Amino acid sequence: MTTDTLEIQMIERLARALPRSPRQLNALHASDAELVHLTGTTILAVTTDGIVEEIATGLYDDAGLVGWMSVLVNASDLAAVGARPLGIVVCETLPPTMGPEDIAALQRGIADASLAHGLPVLGGDTNAGSQFQIVGTAVGLVEGAAPLTRVGAAPGDRLFASGPLGLGSVFAFTQLSRAASPLPSSRAPRFRPHARLHEGAMLRQFASACMDTSDGLLATLDEIGRLNGVGFRFTLPVEGMLHGAAHGLAETLHLPPWTMLAGPHGEFELVFTVPAAKADPFRCAAAAEGWTPIELGEVVSGSGTTLMPVEGSITLDTGKVRNLFLECGGDADRYVTALVAMHESATAAPAAPPDRTLGST
Amino acid sequence: MTTDTLEIQMIERLARALPRSPRQLNALHASDAELVHLTGTTILAVTTDGIVEEIATGLYDDAGLVGWMSVLVNASDLAAVGARPLGIVVCETLPPTMGPEDIAALQRGIADASLAHGLPVLGGDTNAGSQFQIVGTAVGLVEGAAPLTRVGAAPGDRLFASGPLGLGSVFAFTQLSRAASPLPSSRAPRFRPHARLHEGAMLRQFASACMDTSDGLLATLDEIGRLNGVGFRFTLPVEGMLHGAAHGLAETLHLPPWTMLAGPHGEFELVFTVPAAKADPFRCAAAAEGWTPIELGEVVSGSGTTLMPVEGSITLDTGKVRNLFLECGGDADRYVTALVAMHESATAAPAAPPDRTLGST
Repeated sequence: MTTDTLEIQMIERLARALPRSPRQLNALHASDAELVHLTGTTILAVTTDGIVEEIATGLYDDAGLVGWMSVLVNASDLAAVGARPLGIVVCETLPPTMGPEDIAALQRGIADASLAHGLPVLGGDTNAGSQFQIVGTAVGLVEGAAPLTRVGAAPGDRLFASGPLGLGSVFAFTQLSRAASPLPSSRAPRFRPHARLHEGAMLRQFASACMDTSDGLLATLDEIGRLNGVGFRFTLPVEGMLHGAAHGLAETLHLPPWTMLAGPHGEFELVFTVPAAKADPFRCAAAAEGWTPIELGEVVSGSGTTLMPVEGSITLDTGKVRNLFLECGGDADRYVTALVAMHESATAAPAAPPDRTLGST
Repeated sequence: MTTDTLEIQMIERLARALPRSPRQLNALHASDAELVHLTGTTILAVTTDGIVEEIATGLYDDAGLVGWMSVLVNASDLAAVGARPLGIVVCETLPPTMGPEDIAALQRGIADASLAHGLPVLGGDTNAGSQFQIVGTAVGLVEGAAPLTRVGAAPGDRLFASGPLGLGSVFAFTQLSRAASPLPSSRAPRFRPHARLHEGAMLRQFASACMDTSDGLLATLDEIGRLNGVGFRFTLPVEGMLHGAAHGLAETLHLPPWTMLAGPHGEFELVFTVPAAKADPFRCAAAAEGWTPIELGEVVSGSGTTLMPVEGSITLDTGKVRNLFLECGGDADRYVTALVAMHESATAAPAAPPDRTLGST
């Protein structure tokens, strides 16, 4: 087992003893959206996500981005279960100090993301409170075939991402790090990720498991690995997975490239596994749609994540990486320092304790 | 027209320009839950409601009550459209200062209300923030017949409430008023309202319009009246509508009994209209279920609400009543004083301006 994450422990503690529905098809943690059987082959997907810490920490300091993200994070959860979007409701808490321009920007951000994702706003609720926050809840339908969940990955499956990774880390690091401020462009790049709804719907024919990278690639792999009792071996060098901006930031700051995959703020791509027998048909189908998913590697038995950066192979305990950010008190600079220390200790002593290593190649 | 309420103006401003769904069956404000056509005669009901101000003002000072209400308010919205509950998702914002006992009480409140209403918890999201709040979003199904909405009331319809009114006002007044503290029982009564899900489902066969009293009776009538261009005439004295505790509080404090219907914190009963031709079959059907709805009066043409308290008939502008609480800065004691002043001016000059009077009986 990899390290139990503090977040999972908290969710399990909170969820214990809450009544569950016999219609619900997914267990706790087992999918990005809750899946409720309606009738025949029709499943309702429901997901709720609040934008709270992102505002309080200053990560999202623009009301338009808050509006966009309140829709996007939920659209991305629908994408990860392959649902067709029905709509979203938004519950806003607006502080009395918030001016009409910011409120207008917030509504514009919601409207833009709603249009961009074909996820109409069904309604909402508005409250006055001291802390600005917004909670979106999206509903969608899964019809005619089993939904995608996080469960089903098996050794031998191929591991893919729907697009380049690390842009969420670049955005978060540029917004929050003191080390980033002397950089040539100290303003964060415009960050408006798009949910992979079309790709998610298509993946229902091919993928054995799927999850969005809302918490970054390594946390996503940790969760999929944990749920399926598997690990992962990267066959693509980390540089090949990274978005150009993430590659550039790692070079500028002399950071190991994989640290761009460790940020707890992700890029909202889908990470998914495809059984070997379906890998070729999947590649063809994706190509026919003009989509080039990135083939990261493969699913292996055991647990843990093997990374193969340019300079050699290292093994990471992804649970440890997930906890590290909390242990650093959410401080971006302390986190990066801790990741670099983890890198140095992993490359200095490549053989991790036997219960969590996969052996290097 | 009655006075436009500030709340409606704000919601309309926020909702303007948000993309709507062609599947959505209800217009803005026109129902307690959003209604989305699924397939054939199946409609999805979705509703979201945050518990924010209730915590910030000290109205809900008990985490167990907060948990209960986060489920109840949404269950009550499902009841008002006659939906069968599917489940609820909850998004919690917990401050770091909140201790494990309060968190456990919160979860217990959610679990209790979930069980009591047959509304299983499908999932949720947990955030850390400085201000404790919780947002629930419930989904339900309406199958085989048109859903109940707030629209459809016509002059001549009978006006009912699902049960006695005013308990929400008693609770809120006892919690918030300085005038209440010298009362024999200065602690608020235990307040755990139940949503009228069973009654709402039954009402789909009989009612022309329905809405829950989450904001109190007068705000509810104002909304139904506004949407249908109608007014109401009470044929039952106010004392006959009131919960015993509300009657008792009004007597103790020498308040006009109708002020117990004006509190913006309601009792989560259903208020509904039944066409005259269906009134007898409805009374029979309700009696057969052991349910005694309270017959308040009737729908009349024009707008405004006629009240007939013991001491004579007064006409109220319900829009004005709705705005009054905001104009009093949400202060319970100032609000009660303003209501009493409104009562005195209405009884002193019973003829309101002609465009909003119904004529006294």
